[in-house]
Amino acid sequence: MSTISTIGFDADDTLWESEIYFAETEEKFLSLMQSYGVEVDVHNHLYGTEKRNLNRFGYGVKSFTLSMIESAHYLTRGTLRSDDTLQIVQWGKELMNHPLKLLDGVKETLQILDKQFCLLIITKGDLFHQQQKITDSGLEVHTDGVEILQEKDSDAYRKLLSKRDIEPESFLMVGNSLRSDILPVINIGGHAIHIPHEVTWQYENEFNEVKVEDGYSVLHSITDLPTFLSR
Amino acid sequence: MSTISTIGFDADDTLWESEIYFAETEEKFLSLMQSYGVEVDVHNHLYGTEKRNLNRFGYGVKSFTLSMIESAHYLTRGTLRSDDTLQIVQWGKELMNHPLKLLDGVKETLQILDKQFCLLIITKGDLFHQQQKITDSGLEVHTDGVEILQEKDSDAYRKLLSKRDIEPESFLMVGNSLRSDILPVINIGGHAIHIPHEVTWQYENEFNEVKVEDGYSVLHSITDLPTFLSR
Repeated sequence: MSTISTIGFDADDTLWESEIYFAETEEKFLSLMQSYGVEVDVHNHLYGTEKRNLNRFGYGVKSFTLSMIESAHYLTRGTLRSDDTLQIVQWGKELMNHPLKLLDGVKETLQILDKQFCLLIITKGDLFHQQQKITDSGLEVHTDGVEILQEKDSDAYRKLLSKRDIEPESFLMVGNSLRSDILPVINIGGHAIHIPHEVTWQYENEFNEVKVEDGYSVLHSITDLPTFLSR
Repeated sequence: MSTISTIGFDADDTLWESEIYFAETEEKFLSLMQSYGVEVDVHNHLYGTEKRNLNRFGYGVKSFTLSMIESAHYLTRGTLRSDDTLQIVQWGKELMNHPLKLLDGVKETLQILDKQFCLLIITKGDLFHQQQKITDSGLEVHTDGVEILQEKDSDAYRKLLSKRDIEPESFLMVGNSLRSDILPVINIGGHAIHIPHEVTWQYENEFNEVKVEDGYSVLHSITDLPTFLSR
């Protein structure tokens, strides 16, 4: 890895907590559906709705909130009460406004790496929400740029690197999602380090169509990164 | 205007139709509310909800859809039926997928100007939806870059121009919104041409806090732009 000049960091669940808030909301949604006597698998129904809506609404909290409302209509067989619908919208607002919690050691690690590498934050999803979280994180001062993408596939990484005049072989991506952070970067000849997060959205672990062309490394924590890169 | 090197184009209601689809949806929303016997001013209630939710949800169709649902709950005094909620979500999906309709002369005008100027599309709102529309428009080949911003205020324009090494005095912004396209650009020393659209979102015409420091020009149609600039 001696040729690495630029490191891209995924944001949600790599730099800060995100998925735990979705999981907490889904718990509340499950309880709400149980109060209607719903007996089918609520998680699977909601997840199916989310996936179907991805190509209509894209990623992010607002899309998730609309999918909860749609799923609730079908799960309750059309008996969802107006005040419960409003409650779901309210959960969406809370999700948009949860306090930002950096993962352990993130700030210190970026400060160390910033001295030696060009650092980018590369995230996907809701522009408004991601921008808000980047501002709240205070991390922008330790990075050389932010890219908020609609999708993180090989094409998107290729375009981004080309725009910034970065050769794939001198680029390292760090993230918790094999689907979005690791495999597409490996596939275009870049490097990648997977830092799994204990809670990762199911969708990010589904990647039948992506083929691993080469290896990538796995680290337990972002704080292991400086030592790993100095080897 | 002999020093202009870069022209930024707003997208919604400057390059293609957008607000008419929101207006059509609002008509359907009004009918739905009337079917519940709602007597208060539906437009004002919905608009108030939209504005309040802007700093929670940002711009765009998904935000608008969630605001319709919230507004409908209150307007119907908590009696909104589940199937009507689903109908509103469905309207949101239709808004995300309306066919893209370029305004008259847009493609030809960009083709002409592309020979002499650096052209940018500068839009705001929902990343997913804007990217989709830009792709559908086929206009990217006639431009030198696309910027999808979270907000189009003076700070955002200043940052964008600085990032691209463009002096404000050599920059011209073209758009239908005084609030987002014209006044913030004038305020940082750039040039602006206002091309009003017959349907413009009410919010874009409210700008008490922005002061016009200098003049801007008004054109009837984008097709007048090449002649205007050649003077």
